[in-house]
Amino acid sequence: MGDEFDHIARWFKPLTFGAPEALDLLDDAAVLPSRPGFDLVVTKDALVAGVHFLPDDPLDLVARKLLRTNLSDLAAKGAEPYGYFLAVAWPKGTGDEDRARFSAGLEADQRAYGLKLFGGDTVSTPGPLSLSATLLGWVPSGAMVRRGGARPGEVVLVSGVIGDGGLGLRAATGALADAAPEHVAALAGRYRLPEPRLGLREALRGHASAAADVSDGLLADAGHIAKASGVGLRLRLEALPLSDAARAWLARQRDPAGALAELASLGDDYEIVLTAPAEQVAALVAEAAAAGIALAAIGEVVAGEGVEASFEGRPLALTRRGWTHG
Amino acid sequence: MGDEFDHIARWFKPLTFGAPEALDLLDDAAVLPSRPGFDLVVTKDALVAGVHFLPDDPLDLVARKLLRTNLSDLAAKGAEPYGYFLAVAWPKGTGDEDRARFSAGLEADQRAYGLKLFGGDTVSTPGPLSLSATLLGWVPSGAMVRRGGARPGEVVLVSGVIGDGGLGLRAATGALADAAPEHVAALAGRYRLPEPRLGLREALRGHASAAADVSDGLLADAGHIAKASGVGLRLRLEALPLSDAARAWLARQRDPAGALAELASLGDDYEIVLTAPAEQVAALVAEAAAAGIALAAIGEVVAGEGVEASFEGRPLALTRRGWTHG
Repeated sequence: MGDEFDHIARWFKPLTFGAPEALDLLDDAAVLPSRPGFDLVVTKDALVAGVHFLPDDPLDLVARKLLRTNLSDLAAKGAEPYGYFLAVAWPKGTGDEDRARFSAGLEADQRAYGLKLFGGDTVSTPGPLSLSATLLGWVPSGAMVRRGGARPGEVVLVSGVIGDGGLGLRAATGALADAAPEHVAALAGRYRLPEPRLGLREALRGHASAAADVSDGLLADAGHIAKASGVGLRLRLEALPLSDAARAWLARQRDPAGALAELASLGDDYEIVLTAPAEQVAALVAEAAAAGIALAAIGEVVAGEGVEASFEGRPLALTRRGWTHG
Repeated sequence: MGDEFDHIARWFKPLTFGAPEALDLLDDAAVLPSRPGFDLVVTKDALVAGVHFLPDDPLDLVARKLLRTNLSDLAAKGAEPYGYFLAVAWPKGTGDEDRARFSAGLEADQRAYGLKLFGGDTVSTPGPLSLSATLLGWVPSGAMVRRGGARPGEVVLVSGVIGDGGLGLRAATGALADAAPEHVAALAGRYRLPEPRLGLREALRGHASAAADVSDGLLADAGHIAKASGVGLRLRLEALPLSDAARAWLARQRDPAGALAELASLGDDYEIVLTAPAEQVAALVAEAAAAGIALAAIGEVVAGEGVEASFEGRPLALTRRGWTHG
């Protein structure tokens, strides 16, 4: 039992930053006092080596990606990061160097994003490294931005750039051999270490009717908003904001419409797709810009269901094998 | 994306029991309103196939064990079950029958213990089935029972019986060949499906100074109380409460003191070990009995550190290979 306490004291207790909620990790639970006037927003994501990250990714980056994918959910909900619970299943034989590197990654992003470790569980597994984190954030009571608030006539916007996460996975696995080295490096870095758009949270709470983070791909996550809101979303692919690296990739593709649909289908962007009434857009874009985050208007909310995409006025149809000209 | 929604709608949405916190699982987060006057108690446990349960255990029982091991933590803290978040990493090729059985197990114990699903994440894994659950419970503000409250002079008590969880693992794996068939069945059932002692929670909040659930083994979990409280615990092994099946096993062992120490070292009992001032013990035992749960006095809290065990007045010493006569 000394081992268990030593292990927790060495690798995890420093990550509580002394939060009283964590009870120094000496208890089998954490205790969170009520905060009248605020709602607690809770999100949970799991990552498995070989599925959600590459088995040889450095463990500090894996730790940071675990926090960031969950922080991205909090950002989309307009929530202020508070604390988290961590479950780690270590493959047998994981050494101190790996554990130290993992902890260092957690600590770096906890400091960057204002997050404290409140508790968790560490087990061993005969399988691959498996992680899950439950993140908690605060919003003023009733102010959480939901997926379900989009209304016909509103504008669809997206933060940052789209497609870099998915192209980044290809870059990180050597599947973008025809790209410039600086683009390969930029894209791979973007895949390994997404940037949660927490700077958007006040603008979202003030102006957005619905929001979701782009983790499954823009079209899929726009579809989540459509489904939860009971509306349709129409997206103009030529309006997608792209990085220089993605633009260079696009220039090498034969079919720009299909290639844009492909970028909109890739995951791991961790941008925010949102809807807002037209009269709110100017203020929303200005507040986002003041936080250093670009927003691009990419479509509109319509009556109906699902997501429709067009390229320069021509509709694209979803087929079994992807998107094609309609 | 239809698949993901269909999957969640089919297997998990029914488990929300319509809780508004879950937002019909259409969002990427849950939202919990503040409850002034109450603290939120949070506990997280992970289970991996082949490590924490047997790979061929029926999945409804695995699901129930996942909830029950976490409910046991809430019970030890004196908390009322509220809701939970679930992360499941399914091995590739997991079919509908397995998923249905897993969901049915969750539903059965959610109804039994008053728990609603608020959210989670489902992923696939090339490794074994891996589960983690984050459970939430309520206690009146400041009333959570901690590990760290034991004081010298107090009494150490334990609920139910000790050793059945560990003997049950042996029974379930065929390693108790010399036991009576009815004992093998009873022990294996106890291992597969522990009973969280939630009926104790008011008695614990009213009378206990410290408590922990017995998941790592009585001696280890008593050690957790000793460590967190900065005290020592002295346990009398002859006072351990045993089931008929464990008593029959004990009668077949050559060294009763060593055998009792072995029972106190096995895990998976999911009883509660607790401390209380001597003047509170009568009321505590009476309230527990009224809830149908037996409490046995098994030792005392002393100045010092760690756990000491004795058998009929003779101290036992902890060695590298186990417990021995001192």
